Amino acid sequence: MAFDRLIEKIVKTNNPTVVGLDPALELVPDYLKAREFEEYGETLKAAAKAVYKFNKGLIDALCHVVPAVKPQLAFYEALGSDGVKVFYKTVNYARERGMYVIADAKRGDIGSTAAGYANAFLGETLVGQTAHAPFPADALTVNAYLGTDGVTPFVDACAKHDKGIFVLVKTSNPSSGELQDRLIDGIPVYEHMGAMVAKWGKDVMGAYGYSTVGAVVGATYPEQIKELREKFPHTFFLIPGYGAQGATAKDIAGAFDKNGLGGIVNSSRGIIAAYKKDGDERDFAGAAYREAIRMRDALMNEIGEIKIKS
Amino acid sequence: MAFDRLIEKIVKTNNPTVVGLDPALELVPDYLKAREFEEYGETLKAAAKAVYKFNKGLIDALCHVVPAVKPQLAFYEALGSDGVKVFYKTVNYARERGMYVIADAKRGDIGSTAAGYANAFLGETLVGQTAHAPFPADALTVNAYLGTDGVTPFVDACAKHDKGIFVLVKTSNPSSGELQDRLIDGIPVYEHMGAMVAKWGKDVMGAYGYSTVGAVVGATYPEQIKELREKFPHTFFLIPGYGAQGATAKDIAGAFDKNGLGGIVNSSRGIIAAYKKDGDERDFAGAAYREAIRMRDALMNEIGEIKIKS
Repeated sequence: MAFDRLIEKIVKTNNPTVVGLDPALELVPDYLKAREFEEYGETLKAAAKAVYKFNKGLIDALCHVVPAVKPQLAFYEALGSDGVKVFYKTVNYARERGMYVIADAKRGDIGSTAAGYANAFLGETLVGQTAHAPFPADALTVNAYLGTDGVTPFVDACAKHDKGIFVLVKTSNPSSGELQDRLIDGIPVYEHMGAMVAKWGKDVMGAYGYSTVGAVVGATYPEQIKELREKFPHTFFLIPGYGAQGATAKDIAGAFDKNGLGGIVNSSRGIIAAYKKDGDERDFAGAAYREAIRMRDALMNEIGEIKIKS
Repeated sequence: MAFDRLIEKIVKTNNPTVVGLDPALELVPDYLKAREFEEYGETLKAAAKAVYKFNKGLIDALCHVVPAVKPQLAFYEALGSDGVKVFYKTVNYARERGMYVIADAKRGDIGSTAAGYANAFLGETLVGQTAHAPFPADALTVNAYLGTDGVTPFVDACAKHDKGIFVLVKTSNPSSGELQDRLIDGIPVYEHMGAMVAKWGKDVMGAYGYSTVGAVVGATYPEQIKELREKFPHTFFLIPGYGAQGATAKDIAGAFDKNGLGGIVNSSRGIIAAYKKDGDERDFAGAAYREAIRMRDALMNEIGEIKIKS
């Protein structure tokens, strides 16, 4: 229940990292694209096929040392319905290889529409009498600007299907403060959002002290991470902003509890495009593996030890 | 530029209505589903095919009297990649029939990710040297909880490709006030968002006084609509909440300027499932047409006249 499966995978790999599968085409090795262009021309289909080979190589290289992947929907939608099909195949392949899959879609809507999204990514759609899981991820990112109506259908799907959501609380980007840092009754918007997240999750608690409603909290704001960890001890954090966006292992140390639990740190292009530094695109998977190990060691150097309390 | 093409279609049809193509499966006539189930079984593919026939019938019936459709992505994603393909086909078919297409996706992310979404729905993806429009809608709904970083890539795509966006300002749902009505420096969050929307749009102005960055403002909050219209005279409104959510034509009267311009009112199931009241599912398109005419007349009774000022 809640994030228990994710936490167990983090403990098993001793690594609180999630790798963002954000395959912007300029990050996909040229030799993979050239092969598909030759067969299918410069089409969205060819691009999508190259992306899938890239993802598969990354997943094969990472699945024993990294607990989770986070495909970002934007990069798949940018390739049209062929891209969305590759998102589906990526979700399935990562799960087959034992990884936890967080669909980074930042969806948010109300009522039956929110239920549609919840069915799409976390639950099932009933066709006649037959249930289908359209894009069977383990967790989904959610934007809660619309309030409780926009979150309840997702929480219900989590409870029913043993899934999780991460609600945007304090995002990693430079302008996140324009709304999120403004004060309401002397308290910043992000903290109000954190309190709502805690409330939405309080009846769906997992075995390790964390609820099914997590929060997105940017690594680029270390003070806020620390503050949110203290105020919301049952909220699991998805932490973007490490690496390419400038945050270091030291910046995220405040996200973790005394058992080393409480968060998972994302890196996307820092890992999947690590080959660009080495200069050998045919070794993209090896370069990603080595960078993932470096990131694990840097994080664990700050965190010390991860253990499940008995 | 901006919403000029939409405004011209509104004037031509004398109807500020957009029909929400939200094909939850329970709204699709049984005879359409039965045909596809017989051929393809109770699969997502069969469901998607039935949805496309439903949409096509609705578009054929409505295209001369309604200026725009608003397919809601959630209902297509709930049918997996087959559903997303039908979203693509629906966008194309509606545009072929002369309708303006607003993709209701409420996307929002930052930097290259936001650019990915912008390419997907408003712009183009470059594959090698070849540009493709993945889902060529005319406008997109956007969630701006992340601030300016999350909106700029969409505005850039609008300026380049003659498209528009609608940013969530004051949504129509009961719990929208949990965040949106809270006061920052004595001013509600939705008004701060309205001010940001005005700022984001100020350099991309259309010929009729409205910028390329519109706002979503719920018909269920008539006072706020009126207030926002007065404060933000260059912001075009997308207005959900009419009909099924309880708002009437009188409630939205404050959204329009003295020329009857400034907003477009959405109705989804009120129109597409109008046949459920008549009881004849094979006449779903006729029932939708008649209901669309009733809605047009009710709105125009409040608005009076729509004209483009010269």
